[in-house]
Amino acid sequence: VRPADVIRTKRDGGELAPEAIREFVLGHARGEIPDYQASAFLMAVFLRGMSRAETVALTRAMTESGRRADLSSVPGVKVDKHSTGGVGDKVSIPLAPLVAACGVPVPMISGRALGHTGGTLDKLDSIPGLRTHLSLEEYVETVRRVGLCLVGPTDDLAPADRRLYALRDVTATVESIPLIASSILSKKAASGIDALVLDVKTGSGSFLRDLERCRELARTLVEVASGLGLRAVAVLSDMDQPLGRAVGNAVEVEESIACLRAEGPPDLEALVVELGAEMLVLGGVAKNPEGARSRIREAIRRREGLAKFRAVLEAQGGDSGVVDDPGRLPKAQRSTPFPSPGEGFVAGIDGAEIGLAAMSLGAGRARAEDRIDPAAGLLVHAKLGDRVRRGEPLVTFRHASSTPLDEARERVARAYRFASEPPGRRALVLERIVA
Amino acid sequence: VRPADVIRTKRDGGELAPEAIREFVLGHARGEIPDYQASAFLMAVFLRGMSRAETVALTRAMTESGRRADLSSVPGVKVDKHSTGGVGDKVSIPLAPLVAACGVPVPMISGRALGHTGGTLDKLDSIPGLRTHLSLEEYVETVRRVGLCLVGPTDDLAPADRRLYALRDVTATVESIPLIASSILSKKAASGIDALVLDVKTGSGSFLRDLERCRELARTLVEVASGLGLRAVAVLSDMDQPLGRAVGNAVEVEESIACLRAEGPPDLEALVVELGAEMLVLGGVAKNPEGARSRIREAIRRREGLAKFRAVLEAQGGDSGVVDDPGRLPKAQRSTPFPSPGEGFVAGIDGAEIGLAAMSLGAGRARAEDRIDPAAGLLVHAKLGDRVRRGEPLVTFRHASSTPLDEARERVARAYRFASEPPGRRALVLERIVA
Repeated sequence: VRPADVIRTKRDGGELAPEAIREFVLGHARGEIPDYQASAFLMAVFLRGMSRAETVALTRAMTESGRRADLSSVPGVKVDKHSTGGVGDKVSIPLAPLVAACGVPVPMISGRALGHTGGTLDKLDSIPGLRTHLSLEEYVETVRRVGLCLVGPTDDLAPADRRLYALRDVTATVESIPLIASSILSKKAASGIDALVLDVKTGSGSFLRDLERCRELARTLVEVASGLGLRAVAVLSDMDQPLGRAVGNAVEVEESIACLRAEGPPDLEALVVELGAEMLVLGGVAKNPEGARSRIREAIRRREGLAKFRAVLEAQGGDSGVVDDPGRLPKAQRSTPFPSPGEGFVAGIDGAEIGLAAMSLGAGRARAEDRIDPAAGLLVHAKLGDRVRRGEPLVTFRHASSTPLDEARERVARAYRFASEPPGRRALVLERIVA
Repeated sequence: VRPADVIRTKRDGGELAPEAIREFVLGHARGEIPDYQASAFLMAVFLRGMSRAETVALTRAMTESGRRADLSSVPGVKVDKHSTGGVGDKVSIPLAPLVAACGVPVPMISGRALGHTGGTLDKLDSIPGLRTHLSLEEYVETVRRVGLCLVGPTDDLAPADRRLYALRDVTATVESIPLIASSILSKKAASGIDALVLDVKTGSGSFLRDLERCRELARTLVEVASGLGLRAVAVLSDMDQPLGRAVGNAVEVEESIACLRAEGPPDLEALVVELGAEMLVLGGVAKNPEGARSRIREAIRRREGLAKFRAVLEAQGGDSGVVDDPGRLPKAQRSTPFPSPGEGFVAGIDGAEIGLAAMSLGAGRARAEDRIDPAAGLLVHAKLGDRVRRGEPLVTFRHASSTPLDEARERVARAYRFASEPPGRRALVLERIVA
């Protein structure tokens, strides 16, 4: 099959044979098919979509483009969690040690911040000395020895995804459900896990705001994962305000440690319990969701995750002293409160605006090549339903003395909406989707 | 405007500002915007379309990417003719000298063969010594001195089109009306002409088979030309069988010379009269279509085009002796008749199959880099409505002794459809479209 014919078939809305997709993706990964044909293909996929069978074939080909981790030396069902990204979403950091402490191996591979959403990998990188870039062998060894790891994708995992993702970023083909699903799942399938919990964020702070599109993404992820032989559960969770109070990198690690000490914000803890329970059931150490939730709650209360967290930091060269003394994390030069311009009950917080405010302080990146200030970020004082008086601090900015605050101030002011009545409560987990 | 934003807007079906299109096209032509962004843009245009204003802006930017010929030193209204391509379509070769002989300057810029359709430039290249690749200065000088020229596009005319066209060919984005229209018209606008007759072919031998799509292309061409300040008329003409009898290169030049001698096939002469009349009216040397047709018919009868044809061949270094002795053109080693496998009235001739049969003999090219055999081709003996007995020759192949004939035989056998009754007559010119 010639590359132009593959593009033409998709352009005309036809369904591609798995073999045609495989040849195209592997040809591109090997550099035989040029980027200009790949980007025309990506745009055709963006506008015409893909069937489940095509998405499975695409994901499988991307997985095959690199090496595959062999975790068979690690006993137990290996379970990872992936989030589609949100503002203040530090769930992975407390979740992985807690689930590992309950006996389920967690080989957790995370990504970087882009746009208004943060990235677990950037947050972890604020821990002094921590190596998040391991070889495939070190990755397997860490999971075997510690029962978890907290890393970025190794270079040899699904290299086709790296090439395609870089193209998508510059050709306006990012927000396509089959392309998002194949990018996420190709790395997961190559990482050697057995099962996966998918946290699909919906609402103003998420990547896809529309609920129906989130549902379709969750369904696609679960079905394609199943087509690849992974057991998977997806949860649609609310991202209509930042999760917890900290938004940034070091500040989110600090909040994660608080969560492991049973001193975290309630919404963060509640989501850790929900996702952790799914992982315990998939991992076979809990019989039912109720039992799994009790077990995770107990692990939090007893601070069982702290030892695991210390162990993984030490295994990856990080300063485990941060667990007992978060003051060892990078500290911003300045702390500037932002007084509320309005008053009443907080009726809405645009998560994307909060994320972009933190980005403007140096906590995130607008382009992949931007550098991050690990100490920068903000703390959210007023959350949905809180009553606020004019002039009370809505958030506190953490920033370098030289950082201009104008954009952050504008965005936070724009993010908050006040009302004279408290808003209705919204559930944290909206839906649960299984294959 | 960032390139990815231009792509995103078109991807989402939005209308682009002329300035955004201009920056994108010129950025790509200068090599600042990479091919992978251009091809994603082309696919988005292919699937989302373009408004007239966008197509005008696209065409204008492509024109601006290079030099512009200044024909103001040539008195009169300069008129060119462009055909969307067909099988046996040699119209340009007799038409240009005839119209020039009637006093209208014809700066004719032609293209090459691709797929089943032939290219005037390849046909002209079969004339010994003829230079069809002139500099912009030689082009202007030839039109000034002779009143016409028969050339290919110079390198400095609309270079953006050359880059985009090469990309379209390998990214399945060729058959898009705004992209076709901008490619044709950018070169025409840069060539310094005042008016243009567009021959949009429809039917089995054409580039776009569907009548409604042809109509849309014709309308787009006329309206965009008008938006660029060119006067334009489009004619939808029948290409449901090869035009004339010769299909190839030297064989088509020979038939063109016969037409200039008033000895050409009737359908070819009829189309030359129709298109020539449009050009005379646009060129201001005839008051109305009836007068214009009479003038062209008279020019054919009096063989007025012969002297002009000799003059242009001499001006461009070609052997003008071919006009009186077509035996000086390249001659195929073999002439092999193909006996009819069926009998009855010829009810259908698939033009594309005939074109591909000629291509398989060496008369055309499947890929842009293929070489052409100028002597190869075929002669069509049985045209629509002719009565044929089994075993009588349908066509005669002209070919090198080493050329295998299997594909040509198969294609010709597949092209012909017979019926017991003669088919209804079909008009040669189906519609006429003005801005």
